Amino acid sequence: MAKNLTTREEDYSKWYNELVVKADLAENSGVRGCMVIKPYGYAIWEKMQAELDRMFKETGHQNAYFPLFIPKSYFSKEASHVDGFAKECAVVTHYRLKTDESGKGIIVDPDAKLEEELIVRPTSETIIWDTYRKWVQSYRDLPILVNQWANVVRWEMRTRLFLRTAEFLWQEGHTAHATEAEAIAEAEQMLRVYAEFVENYMAIPVIKGLKTESERFAGALETYCIEALMQDGKALQAGTSHFLGQNFAKAFDVKFTDKEGKMDYVWATSWGVSTRLMGALVMTHSDDNGLVLPPNLAPDQVVIVPIYRNDEQFDAVSEVAKMIMNDLRASGLRVKFDDRDTHKPGWKFNEYELKGVPVRIAIGPKDVEKGTVEIARRDTLEKEFVKTEDVVDTIGALMDEIQKNLYKKASDFRSNNTTTVDSYDEFKEVLNTSGGFILAHWDGSAETEERIKNETKATIRCIPLDDNTQPGSCMVTGKPSSRRVLFARAY
Amino acid sequence: MAKNLTTREEDYSKWYNELVVKADLAENSGVRGCMVIKPYGYAIWEKMQAELDRMFKETGHQNAYFPLFIPKSYFSKEASHVDGFAKECAVVTHYRLKTDESGKGIIVDPDAKLEEELIVRPTSETIIWDTYRKWVQSYRDLPILVNQWANVVRWEMRTRLFLRTAEFLWQEGHTAHATEAEAIAEAEQMLRVYAEFVENYMAIPVIKGLKTESERFAGALETYCIEALMQDGKALQAGTSHFLGQNFAKAFDVKFTDKEGKMDYVWATSWGVSTRLMGALVMTHSDDNGLVLPPNLAPDQVVIVPIYRNDEQFDAVSEVAKMIMNDLRASGLRVKFDDRDTHKPGWKFNEYELKGVPVRIAIGPKDVEKGTVEIARRDTLEKEFVKTEDVVDTIGALMDEIQKNLYKKASDFRSNNTTTVDSYDEFKEVLNTSGGFILAHWDGSAETEERIKNETKATIRCIPLDDNTQPGSCMVTGKPSSRRVLFARAY
Ligand SMILES: [Zn+2]
Ligand SMILES: [Zn+2]
Repeated sequence: MAKNLTTREEDYSKWYNELVVKADLAENSGVRGCMVIKPYGYAIWEKMQAELDRMFKETGHQNAYFPLFIPKSYFSKEASHVDGFAKECAVVTHYRLKTDESGKGIIVDPDAKLEEELIVRPTSETIIWDTYRKWVQSYRDLPILVNQWANVVRWEMRTRLFLRTAEFLWQEGHTAHATEAEAIAEAEQMLRVYAEFVENYMAIPVIKGLKTESERFAGALETYCIEALMQDGKALQAGTSHFLGQNFAKAFDVKFTDKEGKMDYVWATSWGVSTRLMGALVMTHSDDNGLVLPPNLAPDQVVIVPIYRNDEQFDAVSEVAKMIMNDLRASGLRVKFDDRDTHKPGWKFNEYELKGVPVRIAIGPKDVEKGTVEIARRDTLEKEFVKTEDVVDTIGALMDEIQKNLYKKASDFRSNNTTTVDSYDEFKEVLNTSGGFILAHWDGSAETEERIKNETKATIRCIPLDDNTQPGSCMVTGKPSSRRVLFARAY
Repeated sequence: MAKNLTTREEDYSKWYNELVVKADLAENSGVRGCMVIKPYGYAIWEKMQAELDRMFKETGHQNAYFPLFIPKSYFSKEASHVDGFAKECAVVTHYRLKTDESGKGIIVDPDAKLEEELIVRPTSETIIWDTYRKWVQSYRDLPILVNQWANVVRWEMRTRLFLRTAEFLWQEGHTAHATEAEAIAEAEQMLRVYAEFVENYMAIPVIKGLKTESERFAGALETYCIEALMQDGKALQAGTSHFLGQNFAKAFDVKFTDKEGKMDYVWATSWGVSTRLMGALVMTHSDDNGLVLPPNLAPDQVVIVPIYRNDEQFDAVSEVAKMIMNDLRASGLRVKFDDRDTHKPGWKFNEYELKGVPVRIAIGPKDVEKGTVEIARRDTLEKEFVKTEDVVDTIGALMDEIQKNLYKKASDFRSNNTTTVDSYDEFKEVLNTSGGFILAHWDGSAETEERIKNETKATIRCIPLDDNTQPGSCMVTGKPSSRRVLFARAY
């Protein structure tokens, strides 16, 4: 059942690229660096969006929409932001094409040059804070708790489907607050929301932490993040939440009058997750047979495949299949009955395995006679026969079990691939063998961090927000360290 | 209760512009022609999206996502499409900014010029058909029933919030079929879906019809549309569905093998509605007091405002209000209890009237004593006292009644503003007095259509798809006409 898929062992990177295309998640387009998200991939993204959107609304946020284009000058207003973002980006310089008089087809009309170039948003802090200035006068106008679902563009030279593309889809929350404490609480709350989503829906365990100064978002005072570990031992940043202080309020002159009548600048946060999560989902759970989807996000949770040799058998099998489908649907599950006569059962088994459908039911004429069906789990590839009347209960329980099993597998993998080291030599050895997360002491300086990165390609993924705060001494310089931090090579 | 809103009578256009801003639907941004859709406006758009998306899925469509950018050369591939779309558009010519060495701040890096310019999509037929070529080999791969929710850009010199903006949000369906008949059936089906949505959710009656050849979408063999009438007597095209024949399949070489093994080009449709519908919603129902929203799309269907002079009264009133809120929510309604102490009841009444909340409940200490509440309808501005125990039933019935009443009002308005004329003089007179829809005979020629447009600014909105097919003679040329067509000045 290899489906001509490269194995993870052979070439993990190739396995990923092939799987994304073969499982109909996404493909490259005719535009360099821009992907097409195919219907099956988009259906998974829609499930993710729906859950996140619900969680955002439950925490008091509303959606809005801000312009795709940002005037070039806006980027210069926040000093550190311009360095971080106004570099590799798509620049609109003209607003018209015309038919060339000398027969060269259509060309850019030189008379239609913009006075000021427009940047296709790489992130929207600047345009949003330019807007918030008009929305905020008094403490009564605060907080502003707004999220946007949008496409953004960051020109990337080397792209990979979902993981790094020139255009990607994301959500970006941008909130405005009257106090520093409230803004920090918001940034921390959204980190918890992300962690909850990634763990409970994507079945991926994450480590919550703070970025070091050099890894912070451009313009942030503090960047919170969640970090996940992929099957090849590399880390993937699954979401970030930024406490922006008053930087953007100062850059865009957003002030408010507080209850005592004093003027102050507004406090800000921003936070986002993107279609990159699709990459994390694939890389965490899938195997050499294809995609493995957690039931909570699978577009089809159950597929029913009929097995028959003639019309009479098809009718008998279909009757049972439809009854089971209806019962499962009534119990709240997403079920597909694949009764196409253009494809054989073996082809279908292969297809749904490749596409990661959590449970497959097969029903043949003998099953109808015996009053049983065959149930196959995608996560363990185990099969069992179940009495027709027990199908709904069995599959209901299986959904929970598969969801939990995927989380446990990923969690065990992470435990087995997290190493505590005390020397720089050991650090390098682990990186060059098993990889994974490494907990080590670091002296807190940007120089040491930079040196480690240059020498090993490993970065500090985060300073974990946990209770393991035992001091020690830096594995590189021997200087004092207040706690171990989390290192890894990363996507 | 004028809320400083210009009246429709005074200046309809100004009334619209003010209302959109004051009711917190949208506002202009710092980027010419691009709007900010504010949270309240976006919440209405989300309701519209949710219903449309459900209807698309019920008719077998799936969502996907295609690139924002389209290489310039793609537009040249379909001859009529290039004339229609590759003109006023945003052109990306560079992919990097840099800090100017002579201190001019950030500038476009001249070394980062793209080999081929990219156009920000004005519509996605070209990039999608370039993709479909890879998806289709055999009749087994058809139909492709795909929709995309996206932002698009058409450079407009004169813009108005929602009605005409450089960037707008929309959905675009793009389907591929094995036969001409199936593609035509799809285009017609989606026209019906749009009509159903606009009539049942937006409470706006529409006329279904076909565009004349000169008004067709660039690249279409037939454009179906729905046309609505605004309160100022101008028409607004609320949605279009195009039968594209094999034009895009030929331009992008998309062929398939049919059941008999013969090769043929694939048949296509596309269809779309946009945030322009928000403009139609405002202009159809709203009045000089502000927005009027149909219950089926109102983010808040009911708002409860407490009236009190002291804490004790507030507690008593709140208790009743919360009970009512919970009962109404349990019955499936979207209810807000506005217990903010930062604003007075009069301010709140004004605010919710401006924002078009269908039903307002006011509760004061006397109401608590008497066991009643005051209910006010936004559509008729009528108020009545209702016993507390009857609130849920009363408001449940009111929701239906308001939805129907809005439709009926709009429908009556349209009947009163649809004129059948037989002479060109009468035609001009109607246009210059009441405006509205005009049914008249036309000889079917593009010349006559053009002459009428130049002389009166009225266009043929559509050739209605109804049974009124009595022949006659053209009001301008006297030549034979097979049926009356629908004229109006339009947005
Ligand atoms: Zn981290
Ligand atoms: Zn029409």
